[in-house]
Amino acid sequence: MALSYAIIGTGGIGGYYGGCLAKSGKDVHFLFHTDYEFVKQNGLQVDSVRGDFHLQQIQAYGNSNEMPQCDVVLVCMKTTNNHLLKDLLSPIVHKNTVVVLIQNGLGIEKQLSDEMPNVSVVGATAFICTTKIAPGHIHHAEYGSLTMAKYCGECESIMQQVAEDFVEAGVEVHIGDDLNSIRWKKLVWNIPYNGLTVVMNAATNDLTFNPDSRQLVIDLMEEVVAAGKACGAKISDTFVSKMIEMTEKMTPYSPSMRVDYDAHRPMEIQAMYTNPIQIAAQHGFAMKKTEVVEKQLRFLAQNR
Amino acid sequence: MALSYAIIGTGGIGGYYGGCLAKSGKDVHFLFHTDYEFVKQNGLQVDSVRGDFHLQQIQAYGNSNEMPQCDVVLVCMKTTNNHLLKDLLSPIVHKNTVVVLIQNGLGIEKQLSDEMPNVSVVGATAFICTTKIAPGHIHHAEYGSLTMAKYCGECESIMQQVAEDFVEAGVEVHIGDDLNSIRWKKLVWNIPYNGLTVVMNAATNDLTFNPDSRQLVIDLMEEVVAAGKACGAKISDTFVSKMIEMTEKMTPYSPSMRVDYDAHRPMEIQAMYTNPIQIAAQHGFAMKKTEVVEKQLRFLAQNR
Repeated sequence: MALSYAIIGTGGIGGYYGGCLAKSGKDVHFLFHTDYEFVKQNGLQVDSVRGDFHLQQIQAYGNSNEMPQCDVVLVCMKTTNNHLLKDLLSPIVHKNTVVVLIQNGLGIEKQLSDEMPNVSVVGATAFICTTKIAPGHIHHAEYGSLTMAKYCGECESIMQQVAEDFVEAGVEVHIGDDLNSIRWKKLVWNIPYNGLTVVMNAATNDLTFNPDSRQLVIDLMEEVVAAGKACGAKISDTFVSKMIEMTEKMTPYSPSMRVDYDAHRPMEIQAMYTNPIQIAAQHGFAMKKTEVVEKQLRFLAQNR
Repeated sequence: MALSYAIIGTGGIGGYYGGCLAKSGKDVHFLFHTDYEFVKQNGLQVDSVRGDFHLQQIQAYGNSNEMPQCDVVLVCMKTTNNHLLKDLLSPIVHKNTVVVLIQNGLGIEKQLSDEMPNVSVVGATAFICTTKIAPGHIHHAEYGSLTMAKYCGECESIMQQVAEDFVEAGVEVHIGDDLNSIRWKKLVWNIPYNGLTVVMNAATNDLTFNPDSRQLVIDLMEEVVAAGKACGAKISDTFVSKMIEMTEKMTPYSPSMRVDYDAHRPMEIQAMYTNPIQIAAQHGFAMKKTEVVEKQLRFLAQNR
């Protein structure tokens, strides 16, 4: 049986992954916010390093109340809107729906599961550089793999089917069995680079090649690794140096928080900084350096 | 016997304190850097909350080789130039000269004493808002007290005489007996406010009244108190809340590091951040939050 998909939040992430699924013939329903009228008229354009494509007719919605119940919901909006998630999801989930949070940060699956205890929840991290550059217009610059792992519910067989659908759609997918480790490993890169590109008004390569900011990035990464380990995550001893090497090879790039800040949108401080700090503290680990960056970001969110 | 004074570095601090001494009739010799020719022609102007004054004829020098040996040397330049201190002081010290470092930071007396082991060294902190606003033109906005304490040498009786000279000149002076505690207590204010006004591009009142940056300021202050205690400093439990209350009442103000940064001058990162971090580490205390701000400042010093 073919799966039906809902994309909640059709920005850089949702537009790319949902676009790939729709292009390969899957049944995909896209929820739009401000771009709904534009996309109804003009369709969805994806400019991608893997090849550009245009979807003239997509199943677009401006309100999740008008969407059908779907087998899989890919939540691709920013965590800053997760307080809306229960209302957005309620009309579109049936009793076997699997909700996949393709989002940054920590503690977000628990929050959803506390609000909607009967829903199966999967967490996912996207290793991708993709941005919405105009209404209905996605630019995919680099990378593209997804890593998913179960948080709760009976979802193993559907996850397997989702992975096959993504492979058919040209997206590399990994299914992991330890969501906690996957989330913490993603934070090892996100915590230094997202926050410092905002606070220091710098690009990733500036931070990586200046010896003082490079040391600060490494110090923050090592703090995140230690915090993750205190919370039971499994992270190899060479992970920090691998992250630095990877960043050295990356095209200079504005992480999502810097893009949000520059666009005067809310930053994902709660999910990406405050939740990890609080969860680590519950496990007896003080993320002192991360706390400095968190407070600086909260100040900047209020005083540009 | 009346003391002769040399002022090394006639900026906001040296111009104000030296100006007060000269105005009250003391024998004061001022070393200037870029302002020498201007002051020779136009004298020294001090605009002060305690009353403005102008000194048309002062004993001004452009080079310390031309200065006489003096009984007291007040070092008022920035610590970023302390590598020049031995050469500047050598021509003007006699065997009983007392050198008073009216400077910020930690470890600076030891550095001088290592270079000039026969000189008596006193450390001093200035609680004052004073700035050079134009050549030979000092603006003294608020406060003005000096706190001095012996570092090494036979200097008790001269310190007493210096204090009396300052009182005659209208300057409040305290003589302490524990330079280590004085220096660390000064850092409790300096480390959060100097660094964060630069990194966050904010004024002292912005940082104090926003709840997140206020918490960051308090966190940094508490870290400095804990580091100071690990290094043997005596700091009362109410000191942090007193510093916050004092700052709440202050006129919004740019600390010296912010002034230096805005003027594209070197910042006192080594004396104010790196030395305390290293000295605390030697006493087994890791100043983790301070390290973040130090690295951010070093990055900004190289990448504006």
